[in-house]
Amino acid sequence: MTASQHVGMNDDMDGSSFPEGEMPPSPAAEAPAGGLPVEPTDSAVARLTTERDELKDKYLRLAAEYDNFRKRSQKERAELFDRAQAELIGNLLDELDDLDRLVQGGEKSASVADLHQAVVLTDKKFWKELEKAGLESVEPVGVPFDPTVHEAISQIPAPTAAQAGTVAMVFQIGYRFKGLLLRPARVQVYGEQG
Amino acid sequence: MTASQHVGMNDDMDGSSFPEGEMPPSPAAEAPAGGLPVEPTDSAVARLTTERDELKDKYLRLAAEYDNFRKRSQKERAELFDRAQAELIGNLLDELDDLDRLVQGGEKSASVADLHQAVVLTDKKFWKELEKAGLESVEPVGVPFDPTVHEAISQIPAPTAAQAGTVAMVFQIGYRFKGLLLRPARVQVYGEQG
Repeated sequence: MTASQHVGMNDDMDGSSFPEGEMPPSPAAEAPAGGLPVEPTDSAVARLTTERDELKDKYLRLAAEYDNFRKRSQKERAELFDRAQAELIGNLLDELDDLDRLVQGGEKSASVADLHQAVVLTDKKFWKELEKAGLESVEPVGVPFDPTVHEAISQIPAPTAAQAGTVAMVFQIGYRFKGLLLRPARVQVYGEQG
Repeated sequence: MTASQHVGMNDDMDGSSFPEGEMPPSPAAEAPAGGLPVEPTDSAVARLTTERDELKDKYLRLAAEYDNFRKRSQKERAELFDRAQAELIGNLLDELDDLDRLVQGGEKSASVADLHQAVVLTDKKFWKELEKAGLESVEPVGVPFDPTVHEAISQIPAPTAAQAGTVAMVFQIGYRFKGLLLRPARVQVYGEQG
């Protein structure tokens, strides 16, 4: 720290660096604008040393904060992934319980119609909960074939020219979750008019 | 920038600041250790100005990088949450299809036993997939009552002293997902020996 040894300044941000020095005059008072008197060289050294040391300190603090933030983010990402899935499963527990009840008592149903009705209700509850979470089905009958969300399994001649290139039938429903395609709809497409 | 005006230095990090100045001598050569000759004041001003300006630049770059990282993290967190849930639902589509098939064709089952068997298989597939994702059931019959994962609904006298304080019966299974408790098991607890 040679610069400070011959100007004898105090580092006001870190008292341990220059214990024997004098406090420099306030940097603001020493920095004249345009036509004002020129700053004495010794006082410039003192001011610059303070400015440099303050910046070094600010830089090191920021680097440490950034590093902590980065580590915390990494950890939080892993936790967030698990929490997102836990939240979704947590919302499906009632429906899974319903299904388990059908397993445990379903064989005692009075009739096929009764058991079937119970299955229908359970299925409806599942879909209601999943749609609330963000699931959408892709059932594109009659709309123009879109290769980004439909998969053509077969093709038949279109009954009218207007129907050419649209979806004739859905073999398997597709699914999208909050804009992410989970599975394309598998469809039959109308080709040229037959 | 008064300090540079009277020492006539060049800012080697930003050429536009001091176009008329001379280059300062290398800062390294001007910073003697321990017993070496004292640095001239003018050259100290030049060296300190360079050091200060370099630090200011480093600080600003780091602050910008940190800011970008923070914004990107925020955006990635939201995406990660959705992707985690999408992944889980994506893995359950086969089982949801099975359930839908029972809804669509189940009423034509030959017998209650047949339809029940189909429900049992669908339920098993659901649980297999959910356990693969990280779901565990909490079915604590015979283990010591643990208020962090069990909820006591009723209490009966223990048949033996050793059974006091253990779980007698589970009314409703509890669930844990990767260590996160989704629902405590609702249980009957053995109290003092009866």
